[in-house]
Amino acid sequence: MIPLQLQPKSHIPLYVQLRDQLRSLVYSGDLRPGDRIPASRELAVQLGVHRTTVANAYADLESEGLIRGFVGRGTYISDLPLKRQFTPPPRSNGSSGLRWEALFADDRGDENLGRLMPDIPEGEIAFVTAKPSEEFFPVEDFRRCCNAVLKAEGRRILQLGSSDGYPPLKQALTDLLNGEGMALKPGQLLITDGCQQALDLLCKAFLRPGDSVVLENPTYPGAIAIFTGARVRCLGVPVETHAGRAGSAGMNLEALESVLMQNRVKLIVVTPDFQNPTGTTMPVNERRKLLEIASRFQVAVVEDHIYARLRFREKEVPSLKSLDRTGIVIHIDSFSKVAFPGMRVGWVVGPETVIERLRLVKQATDLHTDQLAQATFAEFLRRGYFEKHLAKMKKVYGARLNAIEKTLERLMPAGTEWTKPDGGMSVWVTLPAGLDAGEMLHQLMDRGVHYVPGRYFYLQNPEPNTLRLGFAGVDEKRIVRGIATLGEFLRLQISKRERGMRRMEEPAAARVALV
Amino acid sequence: MIPLQLQPKSHIPLYVQLRDQLRSLVYSGDLRPGDRIPASRELAVQLGVHRTTVANAYADLESEGLIRGFVGRGTYISDLPLKRQFTPPPRSNGSSGLRWEALFADDRGDENLGRLMPDIPEGEIAFVTAKPSEEFFPVEDFRRCCNAVLKAEGRRILQLGSSDGYPPLKQALTDLLNGEGMALKPGQLLITDGCQQALDLLCKAFLRPGDSVVLENPTYPGAIAIFTGARVRCLGVPVETHAGRAGSAGMNLEALESVLMQNRVKLIVVTPDFQNPTGTTMPVNERRKLLEIASRFQVAVVEDHIYARLRFREKEVPSLKSLDRTGIVIHIDSFSKVAFPGMRVGWVVGPETVIERLRLVKQATDLHTDQLAQATFAEFLRRGYFEKHLAKMKKVYGARLNAIEKTLERLMPAGTEWTKPDGGMSVWVTLPAGLDAGEMLHQLMDRGVHYVPGRYFYLQNPEPNTLRLGFAGVDEKRIVRGIATLGEFLRLQISKRERGMRRMEEPAAARVALV
Repeated sequence: MIPLQLQPKSHIPLYVQLRDQLRSLVYSGDLRPGDRIPASRELAVQLGVHRTTVANAYADLESEGLIRGFVGRGTYISDLPLKRQFTPPPRSNGSSGLRWEALFADDRGDENLGRLMPDIPEGEIAFVTAKPSEEFFPVEDFRRCCNAVLKAEGRRILQLGSSDGYPPLKQALTDLLNGEGMALKPGQLLITDGCQQALDLLCKAFLRPGDSVVLENPTYPGAIAIFTGARVRCLGVPVETHAGRAGSAGMNLEALESVLMQNRVKLIVVTPDFQNPTGTTMPVNERRKLLEIASRFQVAVVEDHIYARLRFREKEVPSLKSLDRTGIVIHIDSFSKVAFPGMRVGWVVGPETVIERLRLVKQATDLHTDQLAQATFAEFLRRGYFEKHLAKMKKVYGARLNAIEKTLERLMPAGTEWTKPDGGMSVWVTLPAGLDAGEMLHQLMDRGVHYVPGRYFYLQNPEPNTLRLGFAGVDEKRIVRGIATLGEFLRLQISKRERGMRRMEEPAAARVALV
Repeated sequence: MIPLQLQPKSHIPLYVQLRDQLRSLVYSGDLRPGDRIPASRELAVQLGVHRTTVANAYADLESEGLIRGFVGRGTYISDLPLKRQFTPPPRSNGSSGLRWEALFADDRGDENLGRLMPDIPEGEIAFVTAKPSEEFFPVEDFRRCCNAVLKAEGRRILQLGSSDGYPPLKQALTDLLNGEGMALKPGQLLITDGCQQALDLLCKAFLRPGDSVVLENPTYPGAIAIFTGARVRCLGVPVETHAGRAGSAGMNLEALESVLMQNRVKLIVVTPDFQNPTGTTMPVNERRKLLEIASRFQVAVVEDHIYARLRFREKEVPSLKSLDRTGIVIHIDSFSKVAFPGMRVGWVVGPETVIERLRLVKQATDLHTDQLAQATFAEFLRRGYFEKHLAKMKKVYGARLNAIEKTLERLMPAGTEWTKPDGGMSVWVTLPAGLDAGEMLHQLMDRGVHYVPGRYFYLQNPEPNTLRLGFAGVDEKRIVRGIATLGEFLRLQISKRERGMRRMEEPAAARVALV
């Protein structure tokens, strides 16, 4: 028997516990390359868990390259578990007087930490990232801004600054946001090192271990990493991805209400526009309803606005912040989906009480955001370069969105569905039931196509047949090639299944099974 | 009776609890300008606490301008409690549907958050900050570096990067540190947004609520803010400031051992060189002993190296990191005391296991440090500008240290002591017993001289007769003028006391006392 101990009461999902324990057994040498591990059905019975729990754990381990399943033959510890995308934690070496691992804070949600930026080999078709396309960066415009501010205010920029942000950037942002209809007062704006840090600061300001937040399910793994790292309970509310049905896209509000009735929740974190990973947008009536519910339950709403400016078609939907009559929305945003994510600059708009609290937390976290980045962005805004670049990128990404939609339409096998976003950076694909995007990934990587299996984005109830296609970083030609490869592979899988070619012989080289 | 409730079991010092409750009563209107509050002795009896507890709370409130003591007449709520250096937290306004304060995480150590960067009016003599002198910033050299890297590698800089740091900066830093004798391997270095963030990441990686760290007492308030904010127990070990006695400066190691025997401690945070606020440096034999003790108790040591390069005289003392034979030291450092703190760039050197853990935590915190700042610092190092600037600043600050020492020698009244650092940015002054640096502050501010009362740096047992003089930001002429003003004021206070002029009449305008 493999020594496994799951804790049903933990807020860490069972499949994550199982996956991590199996992984540890591989790194400790208790499980070795070639060892057979039990079938998911079998292990599920042994552990008294649902079979999906085991299947999900196995799928993650397979996508890490740690185990490999052979249909009909069983599942084995892989020959090369350490090579591909997974660097094992270094062992404490002989020279160390400390067992460092024993000193680390436990259950920090490490299972989520590694998910934010998977390593992808250069030159392949990477539908993986949600980062802007660097070949269009107006580097020269940026450099001119940088020079101008260093000449004009170099000493001030390079000296220690204010925790709430560099005043000229606060002014330029206020002008931008008020131009977009926000009516921002001084004291309602704080500069951060981007949206990731905004979430981290909100977590520190609002949440204690054991408190609860509502997140979308699926959602941005960086958010899961922050909250589970702070030992906060993450309650997932399903995102409706059937964008076709009017009024139903985005967070399911009936499910939200039911979660709020059963739990004392402190924050609801939601991305109403072009949600990552699904690309869905909440219609305005749903937004109003969300605010009404949050108000009724006295829960603050964090609106992640990071993708909203990347709208390529259809009319803008008013932000939660602009619909907010009772002051319960905290609005976070960043430049980094439009340009220059290497410069970590974002912002929070919220009630003065909240901003003042966040300012203190920011001060204790890293004093303030880099001022050269802030000053340069201020100049970039003042000169109109930001709007110019945004307009250009909307054209570029809009063309890519059209290309991926047309190609999906043309080349996906029947039974495949995908969301139809009007902007953002990703399309969410649901494969025919029974296909597993995680299991397929390695074979598609061998064919030069990368994507992120849907399960990386789930808090709970992962659907193995989902995947995210980030289209913004891939040009049209490569989009067509990548989707063609994906479509061809899917058809092959489907026809294999249909032809009942799933039974194969036991491998001759199978080592003694552990169970 | 004033409604006060102190919790003796809280890890928040009693005087902080008392101070904050009194402050709240002022902002809630329960205590109003002109109201008399009980004498410290009287209130101490009522609350069953030591008189010093009340005295410390009152001293802080007085230095905030919230209360004012009149010798012999009693202590009153000030007429202008809201004006000077204290901005009250904004009230939740009528339009808000949420009581935000109720949603905030409680006991986040806010009492410490506000302490990092007190606001000082421009143009006065501010012995307050520990920031570098901006008039010497080589802004043009910096701008040239910035241009060079944007031209050569602009797209790479402005695109999303690695959580452990921008590779060219990691290389340039490795060269610098290895040139200083460190023998750094790849994988032992992580870039942060400065030392403040390094401490925050270490806190996240190692500590859970209720865990314990050892800090120096007194220490950098930014460290207290991080750890108390994370609900970590801070155990203070006294810093010996009698630098004259050979071998006794720095953290008291007997006290450390006794704390380690009585508590399960996870980290010891120590600044062996030119400690903030005392300026003391641990001799090499004490450093070896500290490492031996830490090894014996299996506790990791965090060495804050931020001031160490600012040595103006005497020989360098080997860093804890360089003396560390068992791999228990995590070494943190930053550029920001030498130059450009507005660019938030620092680093951590530690065992690979620790760096890998910190990389994951950094990723979940803010993805990575600003890359333009990193790339520019890399170029600044490669061109030798850093060493050139450091050499220059050592001359400038060395001259200022000489000036403040000579002037203190000449103008301080008998019974005043101060530390004799060979570098860093601050001198720690101990006034004759009975004088209170916090009480004196407002009168000295009226005379244009600012300093930080010692109690701001204490975790426990604050000594009211201590203060920190930051000399690096003040030129020699102003140093002489400032110390002359301080000396004159102290003599006056002492002679007043000696002449027994402490009794004065009750004020005619005293309003009805609350107690």
